[in-house]
Amino acid sequence: MKKKKREEIKHLSQLREWIDLKREFDIIDLFATLHPADIADLIDDLDEQEKIRLFSLLEVEKASDVILELSDISRDQILEDISDKKLTEIVDEMESDDAADIISELTEDQARTVLEGIEPEDSEDVRKLLKHKEDSAGGIMQSELVSIQEDATIRDALEAVINTSDEIEDIHNIFVIDKENKLVGSVPLQKLITSKRISPVIESIDKSIPAVHVDIDQEEVARMFEKYDLVSLPVLDDDNRLLGRITVDDIVDVMEEETSEDIFRIAGLGEDDSIFNNPMESVKKRLPWLYLNLLTALISVFVIGVFEDTIKMMVVLAVFMPLVAGLGGNAGAQSIALIIRGLALGEVTFHNVKKVLYKQILVGLANGICIGIAVGVVAYYWKGMPVLGLVLGLAMILNIFAGTLIGTMIPLSLKWLKIDPALCSNMFTTGLTDAFGFLFFLGLATIFLKFLT
Amino acid sequence: MKKKKREEIKHLSQLREWIDLKREFDIIDLFATLHPADIADLIDDLDEQEKIRLFSLLEVEKASDVILELSDISRDQILEDISDKKLTEIVDEMESDDAADIISELTEDQARTVLEGIEPEDSEDVRKLLKHKEDSAGGIMQSELVSIQEDATIRDALEAVINTSDEIEDIHNIFVIDKENKLVGSVPLQKLITSKRISPVIESIDKSIPAVHVDIDQEEVARMFEKYDLVSLPVLDDDNRLLGRITVDDIVDVMEEETSEDIFRIAGLGEDDSIFNNPMESVKKRLPWLYLNLLTALISVFVIGVFEDTIKMMVVLAVFMPLVAGLGGNAGAQSIALIIRGLALGEVTFHNVKKVLYKQILVGLANGICIGIAVGVVAYYWKGMPVLGLVLGLAMILNIFAGTLIGTMIPLSLKWLKIDPALCSNMFTTGLTDAFGFLFFLGLATIFLKFLT
Repeated sequence: MKKKKREEIKHLSQLREWIDLKREFDIIDLFATLHPADIADLIDDLDEQEKIRLFSLLEVEKASDVILELSDISRDQILEDISDKKLTEIVDEMESDDAADIISELTEDQARTVLEGIEPEDSEDVRKLLKHKEDSAGGIMQSELVSIQEDATIRDALEAVINTSDEIEDIHNIFVIDKENKLVGSVPLQKLITSKRISPVIESIDKSIPAVHVDIDQEEVARMFEKYDLVSLPVLDDDNRLLGRITVDDIVDVMEEETSEDIFRIAGLGEDDSIFNNPMESVKKRLPWLYLNLLTALISVFVIGVFEDTIKMMVVLAVFMPLVAGLGGNAGAQSIALIIRGLALGEVTFHNVKKVLYKQILVGLANGICIGIAVGVVAYYWKGMPVLGLVLGLAMILNIFAGTLIGTMIPLSLKWLKIDPALCSNMFTTGLTDAFGFLFFLGLATIFLKFLT
Repeated sequence: MKKKKREEIKHLSQLREWIDLKREFDIIDLFATLHPADIADLIDDLDEQEKIRLFSLLEVEKASDVILELSDISRDQILEDISDKKLTEIVDEMESDDAADIISELTEDQARTVLEGIEPEDSEDVRKLLKHKEDSAGGIMQSELVSIQEDATIRDALEAVINTSDEIEDIHNIFVIDKENKLVGSVPLQKLITSKRISPVIESIDKSIPAVHVDIDQEEVARMFEKYDLVSLPVLDDDNRLLGRITVDDIVDVMEEETSEDIFRIAGLGEDDSIFNNPMESVKKRLPWLYLNLLTALISVFVIGVFEDTIKMMVVLAVFMPLVAGLGGNAGAQSIALIIRGLALGEVTFHNVKKVLYKQILVGLANGICIGIAVGVVAYYWKGMPVLGLVLGLAMILNIFAGTLIGTMIPLSLKWLKIDPALCSNMFTTGLTDAFGFLFFLGLATIFLKFLT
């Protein structure tokens, strides 16, 4: 892998040199030896003009593989510049799901021209795929598949694979259907090879391969691939008719996408920010979240404002304020991560939610007590003020408990409201835990000071 | 999917009823109709004693599938109770990589007994696998594969698949080797079916399928599956000899595992905490991180301590303190998420790190100015104090800039030190951004107050 990286850098500087010297034939030769994904990596590292130039050197078939592997930014730049004719040729080479993905990124005019330009049958397939929601099973399936009638033999099935192999890549299973195109079952290629050729194909069906409805969310589909160790999954309509198949390579991409989305949302980041974005693009995506954060942080400002007099009487309180707020926030962040992940993996369900909540309450209480006592004792010895130690310790217990509870309840509530729980990003929770922390700490201090004075 | 969930709950209450009534034959009948992954889900939801009882009802072959799909907690509970004889039978049914995973979880005594009990050939395979690091290609590969000499024909290859199919599941590719067991290339089953039977197998090699070295990190392996759309990947030793293969279903699990690890580490959570843990287990895992957080939060306490006199002169400063700290922390969290994800996906490399850093500096500056001006103006009008507005605005600009920079530099530095960048969890960054925030805000206030008095 290290070697690989070094090779990539070598290729890149070589490429730049050849671009400068206009040695296009050398570039074409180099591209012929590389995997489309590696060519895409090289192009991603170039400037806009270089990207467009190099992409134009690729022959149609390779271009159609490369464009799918490019970063979003590079693809946008190339799609803006490309002629309708070349684009149509490129899309015509693609499998239906990839074609639909590219077409959905085009302007309306471009999309219409391409859809009219490609083969009518493909165009029909793509139009159907475009009707499904992008993040549903229908949005990631492809129409290309090998299906065979339920009364066929293994020999028929093998012939079907041979006859379609020119058009369809990555065949892992064939699908057995009845006369109404309803799915009967899936047969892995391994079983086709090992079964007797004269035996009915229906006897070789692998019952452990399930099917999904076209409207299921892609995250659920990914979870099924994980749970049942699938490589290819049939997609059905309401009447169990076979519409398409999802292959595992698309699921791997879905999982990467969902992971980025979750990590970004928890951090309060637009899900499509990327290091490839230009800085002003990033600012536009990140600033709204920070303004939102400003609003949640203002709650704390109001809470502290209420206790200005208390702080005036005992300024050392201001010194310890961030301790209470900070630890409550991070205790909350721990629970958020646990719950969001548990929900994403299907481990937390509304069925076991009470048990989960009860556990988090215990954890919050125990952590609060352990940290609270330590902090209280340290503050007492350090500043020699028993009241400070007592107030700080109590506030810490309350706020770590509250933080844990808030961090558990918010993602669960969002899930219940059918909102992505990752959107309860740390920003909102820390806004709340900060405010509670200050309220507990300064509130307790005010009460104790009253008793003492 | 909704239907599926409802079915699961129905099964669960049915199961509980049957356990109470000791209707074991009904349970065995139900299990016969379910997928091992679904049985595992049901068992996960039971109490410890019920788990052990139900697991004991499974026949060996099904038990060997189910135990692999259980949650870590359930598996531990069952492994603690199971007899050595039954465990040996169960492991003997497994593929080498799964057997190695289970054996690595056993006590030394159990592991020895099992390794001596299973077939000598399997035992040899497993012992070899156990030598590799758990999170390397060697740690996730399996020894079971179909390989064939380079001078063989397609017919020979098909026969090899047929002859091994009883023992080896999930064959997607066969591997072509030379006389010294060095890899020549991979042939997908689809190509075996579509090629002429008398042609040499070497002509059907798919050049786009790469190979990996046995020591490569599993995260790099996952990235290769994603990049090259693989279903199965050969693993080689230093001399390019074929040691095993990695299948995509294991990669899907690796990706889930790495995602959890990243999300948990960013939140400052032991990577193996889980909602299945009992509360005291969770406390043990989470408390050390909170104590660590206490230390980083103490930096802020010291910084504010330095400025106690300034706060005494102008208590309103204490009211606005959390605003500066909070926004700096969240601006930092945004950059952390972006960089950690960019590193994980291989988009951020030491090769483009300067460009990345430069962009983040611009983003930090722009966000800081936008937020700083807004906050400064609001604070000025609200409290009618120009100094407060000026100091707050300036401190905000500086701290959002600092937060963005810290959130970029820390994960990059950790990567450079070969430490997992996700370990620069928000705890450390917010510790730093809090401290810087207070330093900027109170420091500027002290300077301005000196000029004014």
